[in-house]
Amino acid sequence: MDRIRIGILGYGNLGRGVECAVAQNEDMELAAVFTRRDPSGMQTASGVPVYCVDELLGKKDDIDVLMLCGGSATDLPRQTPAYAEHFHVVDSFDTHANIPQHFAAVDQAAKKAGKVAMISVGWDPGMFSLNRLYANAILREGSDYTFWGKGISQGHSDAIRRIPGVRDARQYTIPVESALASVRACENPELTTRQKHTRECFVVAEEGADREWIEKEIKSMPNYFAEYDTTVHFITEEELRRDHGGIPHGGLVLRTGKTGTKGQHNHVIEYSLKLDSNPEFTACVLTAYARAAYRMSREGITGCKTVFDVAPAYLSPMSPEEMRAHLL
Amino acid sequence: MDRIRIGILGYGNLGRGVECAVAQNEDMELAAVFTRRDPSGMQTASGVPVYCVDELLGKKDDIDVLMLCGGSATDLPRQTPAYAEHFHVVDSFDTHANIPQHFAAVDQAAKKAGKVAMISVGWDPGMFSLNRLYANAILREGSDYTFWGKGISQGHSDAIRRIPGVRDARQYTIPVESALASVRACENPELTTRQKHTRECFVVAEEGADREWIEKEIKSMPNYFAEYDTTVHFITEEELRRDHGGIPHGGLVLRTGKTGTKGQHNHVIEYSLKLDSNPEFTACVLTAYARAAYRMSREGITGCKTVFDVAPAYLSPMSPEEMRAHLL
Repeated sequence: MDRIRIGILGYGNLGRGVECAVAQNEDMELAAVFTRRDPSGMQTASGVPVYCVDELLGKKDDIDVLMLCGGSATDLPRQTPAYAEHFHVVDSFDTHANIPQHFAAVDQAAKKAGKVAMISVGWDPGMFSLNRLYANAILREGSDYTFWGKGISQGHSDAIRRIPGVRDARQYTIPVESALASVRACENPELTTRQKHTRECFVVAEEGADREWIEKEIKSMPNYFAEYDTTVHFITEEELRRDHGGIPHGGLVLRTGKTGTKGQHNHVIEYSLKLDSNPEFTACVLTAYARAAYRMSREGITGCKTVFDVAPAYLSPMSPEEMRAHLL
Repeated sequence: MDRIRIGILGYGNLGRGVECAVAQNEDMELAAVFTRRDPSGMQTASGVPVYCVDELLGKKDDIDVLMLCGGSATDLPRQTPAYAEHFHVVDSFDTHANIPQHFAAVDQAAKKAGKVAMISVGWDPGMFSLNRLYANAILREGSDYTFWGKGISQGHSDAIRRIPGVRDARQYTIPVESALASVRACENPELTTRQKHTRECFVVAEEGADREWIEKEIKSMPNYFAEYDTTVHFITEEELRRDHGGIPHGGLVLRTGKTGTKGQHNHVIEYSLKLDSNPEFTACVLTAYARAAYRMSREGITGCKTVFDVAPAYLSPMSPEEMRAHLL
């Protein structure tokens, strides 16, 4: 069997996660890693060579699908359309509001080049989106809820780190249990931001810093914390490393709805993720969609695709017969 | 907008559920109901006419998708291939072991006639199957678990009713909480039949019947109860009607898996359904897949399809742009 040759652009947490995920898939192999940093002396966990991004186009013939492992703020809006002109690509673009314009730019590039470009793959957007779509298509009269956490929010942790006197910080987003219970009981609550999530912060302060002031700065920060019930714990650098070194995340998508001649029957559809490593799980989703991109391209399909456009069978290494026998 | 015209064959619980579901979908309308019983005097909730099944082929031009609402034991193995020669069809065939041969028969008929035939649509097989496939494609190294309940098992209720001295009965299948907790804690338990589910029976005995003997008969029944921890409650006919008149069901699909260079990170994917009405929810799933069947047929696709073969976007009444803006 010819294995699907995967390239990785960007060797941060997500890129390393893809490297691990590819090793778990027998029908794939990692061809090379590309970086914008100086590759000399860079070592991959799998021993696969690291090249400078300038060499990427020259290695076109060695790569079936290129995984774009950069960030949504500045990397992907530029990279995905640019590389879709040369490769089948997969990205995890997650700036929800900008998806329509990202889709349009990538679709144009991919169609012109005859490539398949999967965008916004991961868990939200990604698996959560899929569950919103399926649940909405099934329960036509109902309410949608998405909760995030318990997990580390990188953006909120960064916001705390920018406060003077803060050496390091981790912020956990946590769903409010009573809100979840109300949703599951089909009470159709209308929930404010404050009622859905709490925020818990673990902060390492500089020596001599004014902790009371820091706590007030955090709790009053608009958009990030002011709209939430926020708890702040000051801990040592050692405690932060020991107890908060991981990148866990997760969350829940729920839809409740009614059926019956009088709407007398309630139904709850719930999808949840509990992830020890947010980037490694995201990488696993990207990898499954790399398989789909490759297979769809073999059928002559081109253009930009999201998880909504991919028949589930494309994701599995099993044959259709095996799937029907073992998974259906 | 031309609405999708739905026909229903079989007006039991599932057929009635489809009638309700179609009313919740603005892009669909119910054309007619067909029955093998005498239609004279039969009344539908929506006022749509009921015809004898003999008239079905004559109404070909009035129906875009035919919903086959019969049973998997004897109706669907015959009906689905037969009607796929004349209509786009959707069925809920759920005899897992016979899906491969059902697929082959239906595929041949549908391809010959240029029709789309969706089989094994519902929640298991159906939504549960989808979640098994997605989770397996993402977490390549892991374990799968499916739990059913809490809910009414029709087959087990029937089995109790066949015992002499039993007037009526309902049987609930219930997941064992400690087993579920172990799965969620990523302990990868190997669970026996007894460790996964318990069975709770509510029995109305004939006057003067030997209740001790009935209880022993139930608990020792091979395949149905002997392999489970079973509880039997004797209640009155009135209590049965009052407290156990519904057809609730549901269940959970979980996959736990490991990632990381040393497999050091655990992940839990969990999908759960809590349904007040098993047939009405199943009907909602069938209805969403009727939309998909219709749209796929418009693109020239033919043959037998399962939920694995259907790109999620086909299920939603939204346009691709709306979906990307609101659900992704």
